[in-house]
Amino acid sequence: MRIGELSRRTGVPVPTVKYYVREGLLPAGELTSPNQAHYGERHERRLRLIRALLDVGGLSVAAVRDVVAAVDEPDRSVHKVLGEATNPIVPRFPQGPDDEALAAARDRVGELVAARGWRLDGDHPAVTALAETLAALERAGHGAFAEVLDDYADAADGVAEADFDHVRKRVALDDLVESVVVGTVMGDAIFASLRRMAQVHRSSRLYGDAAD
Amino acid sequence: MRIGELSRRTGVPVPTVKYYVREGLLPAGELTSPNQAHYGERHERRLRLIRALLDVGGLSVAAVRDVVAAVDEPDRSVHKVLGEATNPIVPRFPQGPDDEALAAARDRVGELVAARGWRLDGDHPAVTALAETLAALERAGHGAFAEVLDDYADAADGVAEADFDHVRKRVALDDLVESVVVGTVMGDAIFASLRRMAQVHRSSRLYGDAAD
Repeated sequence: MRIGELSRRTGVPVPTVKYYVREGLLPAGELTSPNQAHYGERHERRLRLIRALLDVGGLSVAAVRDVVAAVDEPDRSVHKVLGEATNPIVPRFPQGPDDEALAAARDRVGELVAARGWRLDGDHPAVTALAETLAALERAGHGAFAEVLDDYADAADGVAEADFDHVRKRVALDDLVESVVVGTVMGDAIFASLRRMAQVHRSSRLYGDAAD
Repeated sequence: MRIGELSRRTGVPVPTVKYYVREGLLPAGELTSPNQAHYGERHERRLRLIRALLDVGGLSVAAVRDVVAAVDEPDRSVHKVLGEATNPIVPRFPQGPDDEALAAARDRVGELVAARGWRLDGDHPAVTALAETLAALERAGHGAFAEVLDDYADAADGVAEADFDHVRKRVALDDLVESVVVGTVMGDAIFASLRRMAQVHRSSRLYGDAAD
């Protein structure tokens, strides 16, 4: 298809598509004449992945470039490639000073990782995000909320198990990295929506009245 | 304390504090002389709440105004106030066309809500966010990922239970709405970090090798 058709099918304006090509996020189309390029289904899927990472994942263009580079070169161990592809995808978190609250939060996260026997680096971006979030809660006078941490970790482990069960059963090796990236970004939005829905239900049961 | 001290303790610049007062997010300080205002611990906590909603929750200033208005007027049923305070806090989601993929996703979400007996409106913002996310997955060729939905809903229900257990055991009624708002925003970041950590661990077990 031509670039106009690609734009229409994905809802991404033509100048934006060209920008992604210039920035190295999207491979160039195949030239069919000196000023006409042909785009295929591969481009369409890549474009949707880029939009998901930008819009839902909230990643920067530079971070998306890192992710798609890892998707395109799965030439080393799958674990390493998955790490490179998903490390930039970290939830938004508050960044505060390097104070006592942060040191205590780092210790708490370290204890949780050790107690669960989770194999991951102590300086993984998600570990930092979690410690900074717990420190911000403490500073805001809501430090007691951290008592939910073990229940959250149980739930997160169940979700990660479902993620990888899906990947192992349904996903061809060629699509593995892209699938994990999409699932990581979209899964956060899916979970947050479901959590909100379950909260509304529980709030209704606990605090609702006949007039609600 | 004076506004300069409030700024130093929270890391929010003085002009930004004044902007929040003008926009109705933060109550004005108590005037101690014609051009000097006194701020208390209540202002400091409110300022941290505002920053959490803006930075971590990704809310707009207008949405933050709605949330803090609900926090400040818990004069009706708790369930209604909680709804007004938390409805604006919806995860980022992709917004696509009103097509067959969206209709099918809406049906799927409706079935899930019915099967679980969850009491919530079919047009709740979180229901819309979930349906749009599932539709975007389908359009991107990753519709099969929706098979994780029930496992995710189980986990989300467990997290919501931990959220309300915490609230019921630890939180005074005066602080209820603020605590739920903080927990809603920060809880998403905490869960997403823990999910990423659990994924790294599982990836290491499944796909890692001795060299990793």
